[in-house]
Amino acid sequence: MRHSQTNDGIGHVDFVGAGPGDPELLTLKALKAFERADVVLHDRLISTEVLALAGRNAVLVDVGKAGFGPSWKQEDIDALLVSHAANGQHVVRLKSGDPTVFGRLDEEIQAVQAAGISWTIVPGVTAASAAVAGIGQSLTQRGRNSSVRFLTGHDMKGFADHDWTALAQSGSVAAIYMGKKSARFIQGRLIMHGADRATPVTLIENASRPDQHVMATTLDQLPDDLIAAEMDGPTLMFYGLEPRNAVTALTQYKKEHA
Amino acid sequence: MRHSQTNDGIGHVDFVGAGPGDPELLTLKALKAFERADVVLHDRLISTEVLALAGRNAVLVDVGKAGFGPSWKQEDIDALLVSHAANGQHVVRLKSGDPTVFGRLDEEIQAVQAAGISWTIVPGVTAASAAVAGIGQSLTQRGRNSSVRFLTGHDMKGFADHDWTALAQSGSVAAIYMGKKSARFIQGRLIMHGADRATPVTLIENASRPDQHVMATTLDQLPDDLIAAEMDGPTLMFYGLEPRNAVTALTQYKKEHA
Repeated sequence: MRHSQTNDGIGHVDFVGAGPGDPELLTLKALKAFERADVVLHDRLISTEVLALAGRNAVLVDVGKAGFGPSWKQEDIDALLVSHAANGQHVVRLKSGDPTVFGRLDEEIQAVQAAGISWTIVPGVTAASAAVAGIGQSLTQRGRNSSVRFLTGHDMKGFADHDWTALAQSGSVAAIYMGKKSARFIQGRLIMHGADRATPVTLIENASRPDQHVMATTLDQLPDDLIAAEMDGPTLMFYGLEPRNAVTALTQYKKEHA
Repeated sequence: MRHSQTNDGIGHVDFVGAGPGDPELLTLKALKAFERADVVLHDRLISTEVLALAGRNAVLVDVGKAGFGPSWKQEDIDALLVSHAANGQHVVRLKSGDPTVFGRLDEEIQAVQAAGISWTIVPGVTAASAAVAGIGQSLTQRGRNSSVRFLTGHDMKGFADHDWTALAQSGSVAAIYMGKKSARFIQGRLIMHGADRATPVTLIENASRPDQHVMATTLDQLPDDLIAAEMDGPTLMFYGLEPRNAVTALTQYKKEHA
């Protein structure tokens, strides 16, 4: 194993965005961090194609907190980051998409900083950008929406009435991360706050990957269609957006990946 | 000039995100599009370091709509995209950051699609992701904000009361693009809707570039501090975020770029 010791024998932690899955959506900076890495601690959802780009000598550790394998606690991940870096290693902490968007980055930064270890954030392409590209749309559009919200389905139960009211307005657009399990709740709250049942909702499973799957529905049909679609992969949900031209977008995507 | 004609003699348009300015924040997919390009139509704000990565034989055209040079109308840009692609060329339409975020992408897609020309969107790292990385923070954080909004200062005058009310709540975080000229207006509306005058506001000029400049202020002091700072470059404003540790973040950034 390579040891890239700094002058004081202390390593470094790069918190790196892996992008949405397509390895070509990695940045050059992420690749450079990979090349320097002694160890890569990665989430469960990172694609094997992305992991294949890590340096030959880097040790890959799956610290995913979900799934069927042994479950990692946040404090264990924090401790592993610190122990490797304190040992003089260059650590890449690889997170899906952009690490600053629903990446639970802060606990890890605090642990690393408290140990006196230097760190950097390497931003990445977030899932919403890749997913919206996959349906040929923009997150914002003049005359339609001058703002866009990124939400997570996990936390929407804590939303206040004014949030729901703002979201329920015609023309609102939101990218909802990890929203599948909350779909029925989200639907109920939005309709309660005046949202049009015909508002388009689009789900993109495995955005940017060869097995990308797009489902266009409406707020009214969302829960039923979601059950029928049986989406198992990471899925981004757009509230207020429909595919520009589902056939064209998918054809482009497949041509691009042929 | 190279002509990469397809079977039917029709070219192709890639709408490509150039990232926030650091050429290392380009994706591999953007670089590939560059290599295929016969012509690159780019915005004014694209850094020279990024443009230097375009293929040797590609013709670069600055179609920036602001500044001191001749001003391009949207319809002229649309026509140029179509005429090059109809001529069998591979066209890269290069936009700062992610083309789907305040990129005025839709008019151009409509023009290209109407002409029967194939197109693809290559997502990029948006300015908000790079800027928040530069101050060592996350766009979202458990226990602080479960959602983040991307806004543009240009259009906030059309905001309804419920939008301002939601934004004015404690813990709200928003990334405001092109917000410098609207800073006093934004301050006034937020305070009118109950925002705390001590809410942190951070401005990042030239995010991810060697001349990145961070200014931490409060909602109360924002307009005065903004005038004093004389920020001329592209600037992203975070409402509700302060630098984790301005000195550390900048030191990391400079070390990374040394």
